[in-house]
Amino acid sequence: MSVEILKVSSKSVPTSVAGAIAGFVQEDGSVVLHAVGAAAANQAIKSVAIARTYLTDSGVDLICIPEFTDVIIDEEERSAIRLIVQPR
Amino acid sequence: MSVEILKVSSKSVPTSVAGAIAGFVQEDGSVVLHAVGAAAANQAIKSVAIARTYLTDSGVDLICIPEFTDVIIDEEERSAIRLIVQPR
Repeated sequence: MSVEILKVSSKSVPTSVAGAIAGFVQEDGSVVLHAVGAAAANQAIKSVAIARTYLTDSGVDLICIPEFTDVIIDEEERSAIRLIVQPR
Repeated sequence: MSVEILKVSSKSVPTSVAGAIAGFVQEDGSVVLHAVGAAAANQAIKSVAIARTYLTDSGVDLICIPEFTDVIIDEEERSAIRLIVQPR
């Protein structure tokens, strides 16, 4: 089964990303966030914090596993934060 | 048992914070990071990603649980990200 990758940017709206996280976790069991840069990483972590509150009533407690990864943007390799989000 | 709280700022050095995380997790079982602002949250999440690599040889796989909290800085209440870091 493939895992959905959500690209989070500095302009992403955390409540919207949180809704997507909650949906994918319930459908697929997990979801992966990619964020390039400090502002994007901050939006990503906030999104997970909000998604946790969305899933409280479902009895799902989300955790995330951070790691580094490389992504290609405009043909340049950039370091990104990859957050694997899944139920505890 | 009390849990150590590490305050991560935009100027924190992720490899140093990662060393502290690895130490506290091995000693106390978990540690909590507080970060105020996007740059600090980014340093915090990078620190956890690095700490995971430090603990690979010990067979410990770290996860983190993000939530919002309020902290008082210069007598003003600020919203902060709180990351509970513990073994999987």
